[in-house]
Parts: sequence; C-alpha cells; structure tokens
Amino acid sequence: MVFAQTPDRAAIQAQVAKRHDTAVKALQDWIALPSIAAEDRNAAQGAEYMAKLAREAGFQKVEIVDTGGKPGVFATLDAGAPTTVGVYYMYDVKQFDPAEWSSPPLEARLVDRPGLGKVIMGRGATNQKGPEMAFLTALHAIRDAKQKMPVNLVLVAEGEEEIGSPNIEKLVLRPDVQAALKKSIGVFMPMGLQDPDGAVTVNLGAKGVVELELVADGKAWGRGPSKDVHSSLKAMVDSPAWRLVKALDTLVSEDGNTIAVDGFPKPAPLTAEQRAQIARSVAARDEATARKSLGVPHWIDDLSWEQANERLVSQPTMNIQGLVGGYTGPGGKTILPHRAVAKIDMRLVPPMTRDGAVQALKAHLKQRGYGDIAVNVSGGYDPTATDANAKLIQAQIAVLQRNGIEPLLWPRLAGSYPGFVFTQPPLSLPAGHFGLGHGGGAHAPDEFFLIESTHPKVQGFDGAVMSYVDYLYELGGSGGGSTAAK
Amino acid sequence: MVFAQTPDRAAIQAQVAKRHDTAVKALQDWIALPSIAAEDRNAAQGAEYMAKLAREAGFQKVEIVDTGGKPGVFATLDAGAPTTVGVYYMYDVKQFDPAEWSSPPLEARLVDRPGLGKVIMGRGATNQKGPEMAFLTALHAIRDAKQKMPVNLVLVAEGEEEIGSPNIEKLVLRPDVQAALKKSIGVFMPMGLQDPDGAVTVNLGAKGVVELELVADGKAWGRGPSKDVHSSLKAMVDSPAWRLVKALDTLVSEDGNTIAVDGFPKPAPLTAEQRAQIARSVAARDEATARKSLGVPHWIDDLSWEQANERLVSQPTMNIQGLVGGYTGPGGKTILPHRAVAKIDMRLVPPMTRDGAVQALKAHLKQRGYGDIAVNVSGGYDPTATDANAKLIQAQIAVLQRNGIEPLLWPRLAGSYPGFVFTQPPLSLPAGHFGLGHGGGAHAPDEFFLIESTHPKVQGFDGAVMSYVDYLYELGGSGGGSTAAK
Repeated sequence: MVFAQTPDRAAIQAQVAKRHDTAVKALQDWIALPSIAAEDRNAAQGAEYMAKLAREAGFQKVEIVDTGGKPGVFATLDAGAPTTVGVYYMYDVKQFDPAEWSSPPLEARLVDRPGLGKVIMGRGATNQKGPEMAFLTALHAIRDAKQKMPVNLVLVAEGEEEIGSPNIEKLVLRPDVQAALKKSIGVFMPMGLQDPDGAVTVNLGAKGVVELELVADGKAWGRGPSKDVHSSLKAMVDSPAWRLVKALDTLVSEDGNTIAVDGFPKPAPLTAEQRAQIARSVAARDEATARKSLGVPHWIDDLSWEQANERLVSQPTMNIQGLVGGYTGPGGKTILPHRAVAKIDMRLVPPMTRDGAVQALKAHLKQRGYGDIAVNVSGGYDPTATDANAKLIQAQIAVLQRNGIEPLLWPRLAGSYPGFVFTQPPLSLPAGHFGLGHGGGAHAPDEFFLIESTHPKVQGFDGAVMSYVDYLYELGGSGGGSTAAK
Repeated sequence: MVFAQTPDRAAIQAQVAKRHDTAVKALQDWIALPSIAAEDRNAAQGAEYMAKLAREAGFQKVEIVDTGGKPGVFATLDAGAPTTVGVYYMYDVKQFDPAEWSSPPLEARLVDRPGLGKVIMGRGATNQKGPEMAFLTALHAIRDAKQKMPVNLVLVAEGEEEIGSPNIEKLVLRPDVQAALKKSIGVFMPMGLQDPDGAVTVNLGAKGVVELELVADGKAWGRGPSKDVHSSLKAMVDSPAWRLVKALDTLVSEDGNTIAVDGFPKPAPLTAEQRAQIARSVAARDEATARKSLGVPHWIDDLSWEQANERLVSQPTMNIQGLVGGYTGPGGKTILPHRAVAKIDMRLVPPMTRDGAVQALKAHLKQRGYGDIAVNVSGGYDPTATDANAKLIQAQIAVLQRNGIEPLLWPRLAGSYPGFVFTQPPLSLPAGHFGLGHGGGAHAPDEFFLIESTHPKVQGFDGAVMSYVDYLYELGGSGGGSTAAK
C-alpha cells in the first residue's frame, strides 16, 4: 500500500498498533451502552459518554447541548492550524431484538466472518461507532506519536440520527456552534466505505427523508368506534382500518412504486455527469450478488441493473415501514379496531424539501376527503449535495488513490443523513463521509465492523484508523506528494 | 316470579342455594385454567377438565375426542326419558392482556358492579364458563334433590370456538356422536341472555363467519425482497406492503362498508316477519345507550337505529381485525418489509356459505392480478337459522313468560357460533341459546358474569341455574301449566 505526505507516518502507525487492544476494548464498552432515541433509551448517558470520548481524544472544549430532544455534543480541538475541519457524529443506534442475533448485540464479541476476517459484532458496530472510534483512535495516535495535529476540529454529535434528526438544527445552528463550523472547509462523518472487495465509493450527497405515521382514528374521524368493538358490528359501524387502507391507496400508483400524491414536488432529472457516474459504478458492481444479498429476484419494472440504479439515485419514494392496527398477535381476534397506523418514510431528492413533501401530503389527504387522518411527522430533513471539486472530496480521492484505490463517485446516497444542515444556508459547506474499512448489517441483526482483515484490499480497524490520519494530514495541506511507503 | 310445572321445584331450589358456594368456587377454578386455541394454550388440560366437570354432573359416558385440532368432549346422560336434548359447550376462551383488566383475569374475583350486584370477573366468566357452570349446577341440584332428570342429554364441547371452530364437524359428525345427537329435539348452548334491565332476546339464528389472513409476501410474489431490506431501496425494489394495501382496496367500497369482491354471494333480503321482529326489538332498546357504550357517534351512512339494526341482521361484512407488517414498535424503522398481513373476518347470512365466500374471495384476488396473495383461512362456518316454532324455541318462550318476561324474537345474531353443524344436514336440528342471568365484556377486559343480583328483574347465578332446571322440565314435557309459585 502506498502512502504519501503524512509526516512520521511510521511513528503514528506504531502508536495505532500499540493502541489496538485499548481501542477495540473502548469500542466494545461503547457498544455496551446503546442509546436508542425511538425507545427513549440512554440518551443522557450516551451524550455523557460521547463527551468523555471526545475529551479523552484531545478535544479541549466539550459541551453537552440541550436540543429540546436528545442532547447533542459540541466539541472543539484547536491545534493552532490554518485549516479547520468539521466532524459529524451520531451516538445513537438502531433498535434491535437480541433473539434475531447470532451473537449478543451488546457484548460486541470478536467473531470470525469467513472471507473477511475477525469482526466485532454488535448494535452500532458499523453504524456508526466502529468508524467513529477509529477516527478518535487516529487523534490518540497522532498525539501519542507526539505529532502536531494538522487541522483544527469542530465536532457535532447527535443522539437522534436514527429517528430522523428532528433537532439537528438546534445543535448545529446554535450561534456559537454555527460560528465554529463556519470556519471549517466542510464536515465529514467517519464511515467504513470499503466494499467486501475493497472498492470505495465517494458519495456526493444523500436523499432527504421524512419519517411519519398516518393515523386513522375513530375519534378524530367522528365516525366508527372510539374503542375496539366486536367485529360483528362492522355491519353498522364504520371502520378506521378500512379508512386507512383507502387513504393509503391514493398515495401511490397501482404498482406501489410511483408517488401519486397530488402536487408532490418533482425531482430534478439526472445530469449527464451523474448518469456517467452511475454507469461507471454499476459496471464495477455485480448485479447477481446484489440481488442475492437482498433476496430480490427482479427490480421494479424489471429494470436493468443500470436503470434500477438510476431510479435509486433519482427517484423519491413513499415506503411503508410498518402497518399496525387492531389485533396483531397470533391467530385472529374478532374486533373492529378503532385505530390503525401506517408507518411511512419518504425519500427526497433535490430540489424537493421536507416541508414541501409534508405539505403536499397533508393537502392531498385533505383534498381527497381524508383530512381527519393524522400526519404525525417524527423526523426528517432535506436532501443534501456536495460538489465533487470541494477540497473535502478531493482530499478523499487523493488519499484513496495513494492507497491504490480508484474511487467511484456516486451522485447521491439513497439512504439519508442530515447533511443538509451543513450544505444548506446558512452554513453552505461541503459535507460527506470518509474512511477505509468495512462493515455490514446496519439496521439489521448481526451488525459488524471489520477488525482484523484477511482480505489484502480491505482494511481492518488499524487500517481504518490510518485512513483518518492520512485524511487529516491531506486536509491540513501536507498531502499530495508521491513519497511512497509500502 | 311465577314458575310452573317443575316438580318439587322448591326442593331443587333449596339444593341450588345449598350448592351456591361450591358452584361459584368451581367456576373460579375453571376460569383459573384458560384454554386459548389461538395461543395453543392448555387445550389438553381444558378438555380433561371439561370431561371431569361433565362426569361430576352426572354424565355416564364421557369421552375426549381427537379432532385433529384441539380435542373435543362427547358426553351422554341417559335418564331413561322419552326426550333427548343436545347441549353445545365451548371450553376455550378468548385471549386477554392482564394489564388491561381492573381485576386479575384468571383470579375470577367477586367484585361489586354498581347497578348490577356482585359479579365474578375473569376471562370466560360470561363467554361461556359462567352460563355453562350454571347449567351443570342445575344437573347437580336435580340429582341432589333426588329428582328424576326429565330429559336425556347429549353434550358436545369444543376447544376451538374462539378461532372459528375449524374442526367442529370432526367432533359433531363423528358417526356415534351424530347418531346420539340425531335422537335429540335440538341443541342449545347455555348463555346469560338477560340485558341489564332484565329483558331477554331469543335468537333464531346467527351469521356465519370466516376468519382468515391475507398475506402479501415477497417470496410468494416473486417480486420485492424475501427479507426486510433498507427502506431506501424502495426506489428499485417492489413492496409487498403496498401490494397488500392495493389488494385490500379492491375488496370493499370507498366507504369500507360494502363488500366489493367480484361474484361474492348475495344475502337473502329480510322477510316481513324479520323486519317486524327487528322493529319490535329496536323499539325496546335505547339507541343513545348503545351508541355511548360503543363510542360510536354515527352509524354507517347515518342510518336510523332501526335501519342500522336491519343492516346488522341482513348484511354480510368484510372486517379488518388487524394489520401487521414490517416494523410495529414505537417510532419508526427504516425498513422495506418483505411481508404484510391483514387479519380479516367475514360475516355471512343465508344463503351464503363459508366455502362460497372463500372461493369468491380467492377468485377475485386472482382475477384482479393478486393471485400471489395468500388467503389463509383459520376457521369459520356457514350461517345458522332455526324456526321459531321448534319445541327448543317454544319451550324457551314458555319458561320466559312464566318468569314474567315477554321475550323479543331476533332474526339472527350478528355474532357467530357454529350452530350450522346442528341445523344443516345431516343433523338438520333446531339450535339456539338459552339461560337467564347477565354478563358482559366478552372478548374484552373485565369480562364478568352476575352472581348476586341487586336488580329485581335480573337473575344472579342461582336464578340462572333455576332457568336451566325449568327449561329441562319444560323440554321434558312437564312444563306449560299454570301452577304458580312466587
């Protein structure tokens, strides 16, 4: 592997190796404390722990920020450097059901994963504590090697990413936080970007998202029952559950794939450059592997792999996450439920906005006679986009290329993260993700992050740490040369 | 209160009073053993207990019958009488959630209920163990008073009533059971028929029912995912949850109230006599009380009280009991579920049949392009009807009138019970419900059955027992006189 301008890189790498066990143990301890906003679990403890990790890694000022929701963390590391870099963290994780896991999700055991090596398995391992711990370990290692930090850092960490970041603006746009970030060249989030074959995709943005519940309720409707009644009464009593079905039916096309909400904002078409990026990426990725891993025999409309990916990048979505109404246990129960709920997420692409999408949905329901159906938005945000020419992105490409990786550019993640708060006014900064290493199972059982790789092109934990070391020096202006070290 | 021809009625009544505490304790013990078919709970124990209760009450032959599902019980009491009467029991009860109860549902505590008196509160108290225990107590009391049983009895008890009696024919139509029942003048089920004001309705039939799940599943569909995947993939992956919504949408009218299944069997219109029965009953019942107790501000289509009741009696229904798909916990979870389920019940009126309704539903789904959606029928049966002139019914009317109650006749219960197995060929017997006494909360929390009544027109447990004593003597041919005893 080829590295360039990081000064005394070998000394830092030695500190990373020396710190390996300590860092893995720290990651295990962190996974053992799951903060889950959706379940109101461990928010205060999670923020305290996040603050402690930041202090220990060298941030001189660390503050827990009241957001009205789960607390955030704001921290600065002043290295007296000319360049300042923003870092976005989440300390919360997704819900989990231990019964579905092959290894206890809070024990973060090291287990062998064939073809990859030794992984740490636990909730949050890759989304996002593993990569985040690797980045903090980079700061420790630079200090332990008695090197000067090449950039100043501004860290913002939230505890509500997994519920759609409902209060991210209260954290990021607080005047002093905003002022600190405004000095930065952009904001990045640590992430293990390597595919199982070592390839890396650099994302230039992400879709926006809105999470919401549609609730049909007898009381709000003024028809049907205000409590569950015997199902035989259906002959004389209206049904909120049927009302929900009828309202849902109006939201999408017959095949369920196109949003049919009246006046819903329209997406901008892909540019030629975006199409070219997709074509290049798709050529490098195996369709059969993707279909098999998802258990999907056909894409929507039997689209080709490239067409399906163009749709993935370019189209907004209206998805049912869950349906909950009435009796949900085993077998049946003869009730007419008074209430039924659809859990929905919408994904948005520029120039659509969260508020525009929600307003259109509400107006549509009202116009179609379903004004009584509650639209309870629990979180969400606008899409985000960053220019490929930004230094934040160009530094990623440079570090990857010096690692022997020719990154693929990807126009827009289909998943979402609240990058909008950085890329939109008032901050208007570049934003992205970075990091070597590999993980899987985000939002699913057996989530993992690779610790010791058996694949020569895929970095384990220490390699991920070094990717952050190199990135920081690159961002600080020390990179770009050609002095190579294997 | 006026009673007639029951010989030595006072002696029997004395035995009922003497047995009161024993009988109530026996009911409490029975409630403490809930058999719940939907949860696969206590079927074998429930059948054993049912058999024990029958033996103790004087049935000479008692047999547990393998039905392929939960076991049934077949018992005969040969009194050497010219008349034989069939009795239908269920020993299973509905599911319950103790958190929703004001008194532990298996403890069957005696609690005061204002306006009614002392009630026994527990799962199964009124549906159906309370009335069933009262009937068994009548048999004990006749024996304890050294009286001759006026009729022979044939008892069939099932453990799957609450899941739609999927194996009732395997019990009732087994050749020897069928032969025993064939000798009877009809079959009745013990039931506390009194309203809180003492009024009694004699039902001449019941709707049929089908309970089923409609399941949309990626694997069966051959589209969408075969496991839950990240919701961002909605842009390129079909959604079984949306497919379920679209299929459901085709099943009912826009208001959710009329079945729109192509070729669905049609109900027979009400006869003039049935309309008259409804009009008489409706005049005697208070609409405001009914609407308040159900929490229903308007009936379907703003129908009048009488029109709503005509609809209740005459119209088939398609009801959503529950919707379950994907993530059903608190908040949201960004998944695209691979599977979604609607729990449905359909209620049927003559001449519709269970098989006809299921076939039409399946054909409709196939015709509309939803042939992949599974129709998993878990139970159900045809509607049932009995002629008002049958001795089984006329004896009820006679006993009620001698109790000072002018019963209202009701064409058809909107709820369901598997009377079809008795009223249709090969048995073609009258079937119905009978019993004084009062209960409430069937299928709901705080289910109860009245034990000690404070209302002069409503019978407590001992009065319910005596109503069965009188009914048996009436059926045996001893009734009908006018010798009155207060």
